Amino acid sequence: MSKDAGTDPIGRAPCSAKVPMRVLAYTGDEARPGERALAIETPINLIYGSVPHAVMMATPADLEDFAYGFSLTEGIIEESAEIRGTRIESAPDGIRLHVELAPGRLREHLARKRAISGRTGCGVCGIEDLAELPRAEMRTVADLRVSLPAIARALAGLDAAQRLGVETRAVHAAAWAALDGTLSAVREDVGRHNALDKLIGALMRAGTAADQGFLVITSRCSFEMVEKAARLGAAVIVAISAPTSLALDRARAHGITLCAIARADSVTVFTGAERLAAA
Amino acid sequence: MSKDAGTDPIGRAPCSAKVPMRVLAYTGDEARPGERALAIETPINLIYGSVPHAVMMATPADLEDFAYGFSLTEGIIEESAEIRGTRIESAPDGIRLHVELAPGRLREHLARKRAISGRTGCGVCGIEDLAELPRAEMRTVADLRVSLPAIARALAGLDAAQRLGVETRAVHAAAWAALDGTLSAVREDVGRHNALDKLIGALMRAGTAADQGFLVITSRCSFEMVEKAARLGAAVIVAISAPTSLALDRARAHGITLCAIARADSVTVFTGAERLAAA
Repeated sequence: MSKDAGTDPIGRAPCSAKVPMRVLAYTGDEARPGERALAIETPINLIYGSVPHAVMMATPADLEDFAYGFSLTEGIIEESAEIRGTRIESAPDGIRLHVELAPGRLREHLARKRAISGRTGCGVCGIEDLAELPRAEMRTVADLRVSLPAIARALAGLDAAQRLGVETRAVHAAAWAALDGTLSAVREDVGRHNALDKLIGALMRAGTAADQGFLVITSRCSFEMVEKAARLGAAVIVAISAPTSLALDRARAHGITLCAIARADSVTVFTGAERLAAA
Repeated sequence: MSKDAGTDPIGRAPCSAKVPMRVLAYTGDEARPGERALAIETPINLIYGSVPHAVMMATPADLEDFAYGFSLTEGIIEESAEIRGTRIESAPDGIRLHVELAPGRLREHLARKRAISGRTGCGVCGIEDLAELPRAEMRTVADLRVSLPAIARALAGLDAAQRLGVETRAVHAAAWAALDGTLSAVREDVGRHNALDKLIGALMRAGTAADQGFLVITSRCSFEMVEKAARLGAAVIVAISAPTSLALDRARAHGITLCAIARADSVTVFTGAERLAAA
C-alpha cells in the first residue's frame, strides 16, 4: 500500500496510527519488537443547528458522507437536499461534525429531539423504552435482479478495495456494487454501523439510484443493518458473516433479499431468493 | 452439540433459531436447501425502579448477569450488593429486565438520569456531547503476573466453551481465566459489549476477585471494552482481534496490560508487558 493508505483522501485526519508492539510466543522463546498500524477511533460529535445530538466512536474518514448517511438513517432527513452543508471542527476530545439542515428540517428535528431522547448510530442506543424501537418504512424498490456471478465479482473486488482494512485488519467495510458486480463505493470504519452510514451518505451525495445495485457488508448482519438498508431503499444485502434472527425477520418484513455467509464459491440466501439469477 | 445448545441454561428463552436457507453456488450449478441456526437478537429493556432506562439488542441468555454487569459498567452501581433483585418479563416487542436497586442508589440514579441523557451499553451511545464521554476510574489492581502458557491455555479452551458460537458462528464471547489459564466463566452475545457486560455481571455475582485472573474477548478491542474492563478492575485483557488506537490510549491511561491479535502460537502485547511472564 502507498504511504497514504491510512489517510483520509481529503487529508483531514489520519485513519491509522503506527504503534510499537511486541509479538510474544507462548513458549517464551522470542519477543519480536515491531510496529503495527491500528485503526484510529475518535469521538465524533454530530451537531445540528449548534445543538449537540450524538457522539459516535468512528474512524475520522469520509465524515461528510457520514453526516449525510447518519442523518438519513436516523430519520433526521429524507433526502440529501435537506442538508445545506457540513463543517468539520477539531476539538480537544474529538471532532465536531456540524450539519447545517434546511430551516424547516432543523425546526422539526429540534422539536422531535425535545420530545424524545436522542437516538444514535446503531438505531437503538439511546432508546429508553421498547415502544421507541425504530421501524424504517420500506421505500418502493424496483423489481431488480442480481446475478450470482455479479455477487461473486463484487466480493472478489472487495478485499483490495479495503484500504484501511488491508493496513489494520480491524475495520468493517460497506460497499455498493452495480448490477454487474462492479464496486462503485467502499467505506470503512471501526464500527460497522458507521461504515454503512458512510456508504449510504456517499451514495446519496453521488445520486446513486438504490434500485441499480446491491449492498455488500463485511460484518455480521444485525437488525440495525437491515433497517439502515431499508432507509436507503436497497433491495439486496450481501453480508460476509451471518445474520441474526431479528435481521432476518426485518428483511422479510421489508421484502429485502438477504444473502449472507459469503464464501469463495457460494453464498447463502435466507429470504428473497427470487431476486437472484443464475447468470 | 446437544439440542439445548442454543437454550439459556435457565430455560427462559431460546438463544438460537433454526431457519430455512439455500446455499447458492456462484456458478449457478446447485442450490442446496437446508437449515441454519441463527443467533437470537432481542430488544432487552433495562428498567430501574419502574423507569425504563435503555433498550439493548442482545441475546436473551444470562440476563441476570447482564443486569449486574450493565449496571456496573454504566456507573449505576458500584457493587453487586446494591442490586436487590432482578426480574425478567416477556413483552410483545422484547424482554423487560427489571433491576431493583437499593433505595439510595435508585434515588441517585433517577436524579442523575433527569440531569443527563441516558447512556447505553457501548458506553457512549446516547451521549450527546463530547464533554459527556465516560471516564472510568481505575480501581487499584494488585501486581499480578500472567504467564504466556496460561494465556495459551485460556485461548485453547475458549472455542469449545462457546456453546452458541459453535452453533451459530455469529456471536461474541467474553471469558474470565484464572491465573493458570483455566476458564471460570464464559458469556456470549450477538453484541461484544453485551457479552463483556454479562461476563462482568457473572464475576460480580460469583464474587470472583478481579486481581486473580484475566479477561479474554473474542472480538476487536475498542475504547469501550477497555473502559468496561477498568470498571471491573481487570489488569490484563487478551483480545483475539486487534485493538483500536483509542483502546490502546485508554489501556495505557488505566495501566491495563493489553494483549491482542491472539494466534495459535503467539500474542501481541501493546502495553503493560511487565505483567507477562514467560512461565
